[in-house]
Amino acid sequence: MPGMPEPANLARRAPPALDPPARFPSGFLDHIRRCNNHDMGRFCRFYAADTQVGWIREDFLALLADFADVFDVSSDSISLSDRLATAEERTSAMRRVVRRLIDDGVLAKFRGEDYAIVPQWGRPALFNLDRSAIPLFGCKAFGIHVNGYRRHQGRIQLWIGRRAPDKAVEPDKLDNMVAGGQPAGLTLEENLVKEGGEEAGLSPALARQAKPVSAITYCMENERGLKPDTLFVYDLELPPDFAPVNTDGEIASFSLMELDEVAERVRTTGDFKFNVALVIIDFLIRHGYLSPDREPDYLALATGLHAPL
Amino acid sequence: MPGMPEPANLARRAPPALDPPARFPSGFLDHIRRCNNHDMGRFCRFYAADTQVGWIREDFLALLADFADVFDVSSDSISLSDRLATAEERTSAMRRVVRRLIDDGVLAKFRGEDYAIVPQWGRPALFNLDRSAIPLFGCKAFGIHVNGYRRHQGRIQLWIGRRAPDKAVEPDKLDNMVAGGQPAGLTLEENLVKEGGEEAGLSPALARQAKPVSAITYCMENERGLKPDTLFVYDLELPPDFAPVNTDGEIASFSLMELDEVAERVRTTGDFKFNVALVIIDFLIRHGYLSPDREPDYLALATGLHAPL
Repeated sequence: MPGMPEPANLARRAPPALDPPARFPSGFLDHIRRCNNHDMGRFCRFYAADTQVGWIREDFLALLADFADVFDVSSDSISLSDRLATAEERTSAMRRVVRRLIDDGVLAKFRGEDYAIVPQWGRPALFNLDRSAIPLFGCKAFGIHVNGYRRHQGRIQLWIGRRAPDKAVEPDKLDNMVAGGQPAGLTLEENLVKEGGEEAGLSPALARQAKPVSAITYCMENERGLKPDTLFVYDLELPPDFAPVNTDGEIASFSLMELDEVAERVRTTGDFKFNVALVIIDFLIRHGYLSPDREPDYLALATGLHAPL
Repeated sequence: MPGMPEPANLARRAPPALDPPARFPSGFLDHIRRCNNHDMGRFCRFYAADTQVGWIREDFLALLADFADVFDVSSDSISLSDRLATAEERTSAMRRVVRRLIDDGVLAKFRGEDYAIVPQWGRPALFNLDRSAIPLFGCKAFGIHVNGYRRHQGRIQLWIGRRAPDKAVEPDKLDNMVAGGQPAGLTLEENLVKEGGEEAGLSPALARQAKPVSAITYCMENERGLKPDTLFVYDLELPPDFAPVNTDGEIASFSLMELDEVAERVRTTGDFKFNVALVIIDFLIRHGYLSPDREPDYLALATGLHAPL
């Protein structure tokens, strides 16, 4: 079809440029700006059962034109058809759409992990959607991040993982001891036990000692769409003789870092995965590491970690 | 002047009605809603040196009509005159305005405590303004709140003050161990030492052990105007034999409460001062007392404590 870009190109448009550049953060606030970089003018609202459940980039709508039985498109929004009356029917229709997007090369492959699509955390799922397609439809996603730390001679040390080199997202970057997306059908605590075992070799009993201490929100445009993400943050104080062991291949290695080093690397580099930097900044605030008298961005950080979604 | 209400009445209009009623909160979220109850359609922007520094209720503008040398009024905003070129000149002119508002019965009296008026925390003051007039001009105010607590048999106990019966704001309500507005010219730490001594008898050394752990923001309309407030929150773990002693008459008594009791009273009653309820909710989140699996409003609470101002 002459004049029409390839679907795969359509779905790979660069997010809006950032100033200062995202790759070389010059301070804590740059990480928050980077995670909240988006141009909502490119997106239209996506509804299911008369409730907004996401945002779809306007130049991506053409990819859905073949699915007149699944989507109703109006001038300024797109909806799952009212004929899909149940969560099961919506889930099944969306699975068919995702399969086609994979066949067309827009999406790489099924992740094999369903996310529950909700207008707000805690509400019943309107449908389930394979994790691979979440940013394309701009649906809210949820995850857990665990700060594994120990106290040593009055200082705090954090267990930091290095992501495996074959990860699709942010290979080789530094990561929390445990982190993972929230699949449909599990409680956060069940996911914490599952991910804690897979990623760090935590026993269920030790994983359950992690305390929920914060929730971080951000809305980030990337080349595949929009990520209105929520991270449920846990702190887990570990015994001095504990060392995490990865069992699922997602983390290449762990190291125990002084909080000073972690803070300085977050402040001055892009060594950490984009959203893990936010989890560290939140940790620094909650543990009294940053001073509102001396950190000029303190208030912008404290509020910026909690963007309304 | 027939048809024109008394200035004092003008400045005492009720804020917009809340649903559910603010006086009988039915859950944690009601406290956050109450502190963010406002109708910005009633307010116009207030500028100084080409920078917004506040919000003035439109029906209050008539009270400023006599000060043509101080204010420039446009169709949708009001500015301190550009002829007031320095912070000192602006401070002096505003002091004259406040004196007149007191003479007219709009304001009760000078508080004798200047707040620094800034567009954002950490920026140089554009002028100083007596604390009594802050809500009338809708300027950002800042304060410190200290959660004084101890650990006892694996549980957390909080030192809670009862506000003196003669306090102008929220008499007899429950309060943090130490709390106070941020006067011009002090650092937060200096204010912490000052208020810690006055309100709870803390030694400077003990007060400095308080850790900055959070910043809470809210924007509340009251009968006197608008409060876009920021609370810098500190946690202070106290030795078991410590008991706070009030020295300035602002707190009638202190009691040591189990965290369970504090949480339940915040959740089900209006016993705590309006903004102290927010400080407690933040404490409950940070100390792992609330579960994102079981508290249906968890995410609304975690983000609602950090309203963009």
